[in-house]
Amino acid sequence: MPTRLSNYFLRTLREDPSDAEVTSHRLLVRAGYIRRQAPGIFAWLPLGLRVKAKVEKIIREEMAAAGAHEVHFPALLPREPYETTGRWDEYGDGIFRLKDRKGSDMLLAPTHEEVFTLLVKDLYSSYKDLPLAIYQIQDKYRDEARSRGGLLRGREFTMKDAYSFDHTDAGLDASYQNQRDAYERIFTRFGLEYAIVKADAGAMGGSKSEEFLHPTAVGEDTFVRSAGGYAANVEAFTTLVPAEIDFTAAAAPVVYDTPDTPTIQTLVDAANAAHPRASGVAWTAADTLKNVVLALMFPDGTREIIAIAVPGDRDVDLKRVEVAFGPAEVEAANETDFLRYPALVKGYIGPWTAEGAVLGDKGTTGIRFFVDPRVVAGTEWITGANENGRHVFGLIAGRDFAIDQTVEASDVRAGDPAPDGSGPVELIRGMEIGHVFQLGRKYAELLGLKVLDENGKLVTVTMGSYGIGVTRILAVIAELNNDAKGLIWPESVTPFDVHVIATGRDEVVFEASETVVAALEATGREVLYDDRRKVSPGIKFGDAELIGVPKIVIVGRGAADGIVELWDRRSGEREQIAIEEVAAHFS
Amino acid sequence: MPTRLSNYFLRTLREDPSDAEVTSHRLLVRAGYIRRQAPGIFAWLPLGLRVKAKVEKIIREEMAAAGAHEVHFPALLPREPYETTGRWDEYGDGIFRLKDRKGSDMLLAPTHEEVFTLLVKDLYSSYKDLPLAIYQIQDKYRDEARSRGGLLRGREFTMKDAYSFDHTDAGLDASYQNQRDAYERIFTRFGLEYAIVKADAGAMGGSKSEEFLHPTAVGEDTFVRSAGGYAANVEAFTTLVPAEIDFTAAAAPVVYDTPDTPTIQTLVDAANAAHPRASGVAWTAADTLKNVVLALMFPDGTREIIAIAVPGDRDVDLKRVEVAFGPAEVEAANETDFLRYPALVKGYIGPWTAEGAVLGDKGTTGIRFFVDPRVVAGTEWITGANENGRHVFGLIAGRDFAIDQTVEASDVRAGDPAPDGSGPVELIRGMEIGHVFQLGRKYAELLGLKVLDENGKLVTVTMGSYGIGVTRILAVIAELNNDAKGLIWPESVTPFDVHVIATGRDEVVFEASETVVAALEATGREVLYDDRRKVSPGIKFGDAELIGVPKIVIVGRGAADGIVELWDRRSGEREQIAIEEVAAHFS
Repeated sequence: MPTRLSNYFLRTLREDPSDAEVTSHRLLVRAGYIRRQAPGIFAWLPLGLRVKAKVEKIIREEMAAAGAHEVHFPALLPREPYETTGRWDEYGDGIFRLKDRKGSDMLLAPTHEEVFTLLVKDLYSSYKDLPLAIYQIQDKYRDEARSRGGLLRGREFTMKDAYSFDHTDAGLDASYQNQRDAYERIFTRFGLEYAIVKADAGAMGGSKSEEFLHPTAVGEDTFVRSAGGYAANVEAFTTLVPAEIDFTAAAAPVVYDTPDTPTIQTLVDAANAAHPRASGVAWTAADTLKNVVLALMFPDGTREIIAIAVPGDRDVDLKRVEVAFGPAEVEAANETDFLRYPALVKGYIGPWTAEGAVLGDKGTTGIRFFVDPRVVAGTEWITGANENGRHVFGLIAGRDFAIDQTVEASDVRAGDPAPDGSGPVELIRGMEIGHVFQLGRKYAELLGLKVLDENGKLVTVTMGSYGIGVTRILAVIAELNNDAKGLIWPESVTPFDVHVIATGRDEVVFEASETVVAALEATGREVLYDDRRKVSPGIKFGDAELIGVPKIVIVGRGAADGIVELWDRRSGEREQIAIEEVAAHFS
Repeated sequence: MPTRLSNYFLRTLREDPSDAEVTSHRLLVRAGYIRRQAPGIFAWLPLGLRVKAKVEKIIREEMAAAGAHEVHFPALLPREPYETTGRWDEYGDGIFRLKDRKGSDMLLAPTHEEVFTLLVKDLYSSYKDLPLAIYQIQDKYRDEARSRGGLLRGREFTMKDAYSFDHTDAGLDASYQNQRDAYERIFTRFGLEYAIVKADAGAMGGSKSEEFLHPTAVGEDTFVRSAGGYAANVEAFTTLVPAEIDFTAAAAPVVYDTPDTPTIQTLVDAANAAHPRASGVAWTAADTLKNVVLALMFPDGTREIIAIAVPGDRDVDLKRVEVAFGPAEVEAANETDFLRYPALVKGYIGPWTAEGAVLGDKGTTGIRFFVDPRVVAGTEWITGANENGRHVFGLIAGRDFAIDQTVEASDVRAGDPAPDGSGPVELIRGMEIGHVFQLGRKYAELLGLKVLDENGKLVTVTMGSYGIGVTRILAVIAELNNDAKGLIWPESVTPFDVHVIATGRDEVVFEASETVVAALEATGREVLYDDRRKVSPGIKFGDAELIGVPKIVIVGRGAADGIVELWDRRSGEREQIAIEEVAAHFS
């Protein structure tokens, strides 16, 4: 049975939704695929459900090929397992929490590591049961601060999350590679370009982690890539550390009055005038030390003030800092914080004064002090002297202040050298479409998942976690496959194979259309049939362009002569063809 | 590709789960279909997912045949639409409520009338768009006080909920009948016996409502049925009202000291001795008036005390009372309530004293007074006199106390006459498996869903709501299809078509098994293949009996001679068959 537009639950919209920031959101709403219910929460209309089912089918096929078994967990779960692993708190405001009528704490699960671990613990007990890969395709919830981009970042979204269980590290490596290979096959089938980048594991814990990023201007992540093959999420990028410098002959630092140095450049000019370097190389902005005071906010409510020093030509990237200090959140220190530390003089903060260290373990403030990895032993710096209007020139790292605590805090820039020596990197906007993690033994340890090994000894299981955003992928495909007039679905996920349009009012047109539709369905094609009697051809063509079925058959005046028109939505090409050849053309 | 038990994610359990109260729960857990996560919340294992998918497929097919379109709404929804219809409060503790990070109220939807109404309001505007039927298969949440029976009453459950939209009453009748017919087809395909009974509409509002009840001892509903064809939920049963009696010649009531009447029978005996009726017919327990004081608790927090009078041989059925006074909840009046009304003397409560009315509009207490429909004008009663140790004999309904407010408060008993005159009813335990409602215009009115009619006039849409519990049906099927050894699935929902068991360790057995499996799969059968090498035949047979695939092929010693055994799980019959005939046998 074809789907007939005359009674299909579908209304295309002429106007863009006012809240749509991205193309996929705009077109999926206008073409009648989805409908907003609340910020970041959507209902799926019949067309959207069809595409979503096809996306899920491809993922299921590749999960089966990877030997993974499908299960399904509830969204609503008790607090206890998440309390045990610490994630109940770590997620902060990012998850939905609630109480049941008896007052028990529950959550809408943002991801399911805990309960998959407990399920395997419940059922399995021997290394012979492993390796195991199980997955679900399930609706997840995260209380995003700013849900945006329609399906690209919703508060409810469908995710495929898989988990692997092994009893050896080599087994985990193989399981990880197996899932990673499946992801490559999946994204290839969707026609999605991707980069596999080193990633920070974030709140998931664990060691090895890679993201599949689809390069796109609407992406909310940035990643770097070198011509030599290095690729990493900006949060996971590591600095190429320069060689240390012998400072045994270096002069002592000198404090100067620097009254008219409102900018880094004026400060550098003052230094070059008053305190030229022994080497003769002029001071530059990269030789100034920018000391930034931040507050770490831990899940237990603790607030710790720290200081980070980066070269003055760089900025501190708070997202990179948060990775280093997770699960703490990070913000700039406020006035109240500074009042607690009068030794720090705003605008002139530095790790040192002539009386000794201010920051770090041995500093008078007791504030922990971290430096950018470029601040290696022997480097010489201009920085604040903790006195109004005064700076110190020629401060030596590793002599005048400690450099034992480094942190990847600086922003990453195009042209920065890749840490593996593969050359300078470029910066690319990307959308995360998949994520593979080696969780290792963290969850199994905390939740007590052990099996007997070959020697009858209880060993802790090692796990991987593998996620694909089903609804996000659908949006990314829409983002990539459209033109000014609407969507253009790839064949792998199109809601229908062929869109047949009857134009005009002659009965012969509708009769011919029924013949075409029946012939297409007989060869197994899924047909959307625009059989509306009182709608103009212009509106029908416009709807077809908006909806985006890639292959269209127009049945019009030529029908009387046995001729219809094939319309390729993507190329725009039209060609005439005899009615009896239509089915063969599509099979 | 067959599913091979050697690496399938499945462990059958020897022990019954300790919390399982019903057979389906016990067997579905033991056979590895589901796994408890929290009270009334389950995870689905691979076998369970397969059966659930088949149940959903049958429902989808019949929904499509009924012309309904599938959509999908989120479980997490904003408060506002439910506030507008009053259900945010009416559901009381029965739903899960939460706040998002911005403090907005949200809920996990127990059912979706509001958002379906708003969706149609968003997209449709003309009678030409109607009739419309749309549905979803979706996970719902209700915070049941006592979730029990495994999947029979969970706090999370999958439901098919459909909604119809019409602009005329006749249209709604047709849509309702259309869905009702689809339900009959669905339950027939599942092999489920059902009774269609008149039902109370409960929190849904609306007028006409019927339940599909499956007769089963584990059912939590009770319904009545007469030989003449009357069927109703106990909550919807109405009393056959007796004829009024002329009381013009009746004597005045008399108050007696009744010191030694601890039971109804002793009171009746005292009445027959002291105050025989003029008619000579002896007093019986059915002639005493039992006055019950109850508290109505309204969603807005109001507590109202009311009194209900029923014949003394009956009990008040609080569930029936709640239907009458919904959305208020009902409980017995407590000591504090009685302290407010000293005119009511516990143990001797009545509507009347010699000084005048106590209960009802004209009563000294102001308490609303309701009577059972059997308390018609002219009936003569024995009841409390609101004095310690005293009763009144010969109180006449409609003369000595008002009978204008009747309520269906009495319990329903086997042998009670059906209200339509079709004879006495029997009482049957049943499980609700479907529910069809004529909502009428309530939701459309409150949410502003109107369309233009044939005359260009805006008219309010009239709606129906139709629900089937997907996971409950699966449990009911399991409840009905099992024996002491395990499940026995009907072919319509079996997780696999054929279960092939290789027994013994001879290579010829495994080779023959592969041949059988391949031949079965070539004819389109879904095969579960027990290829485990180190598991005894006894355990394999036990697992097969527990899992419940109805058709089993045992490949054993006969394989060397080209012979295998067919085992019918339901009848227990076994027959030998040549390997090359197996595929033909199943197709």
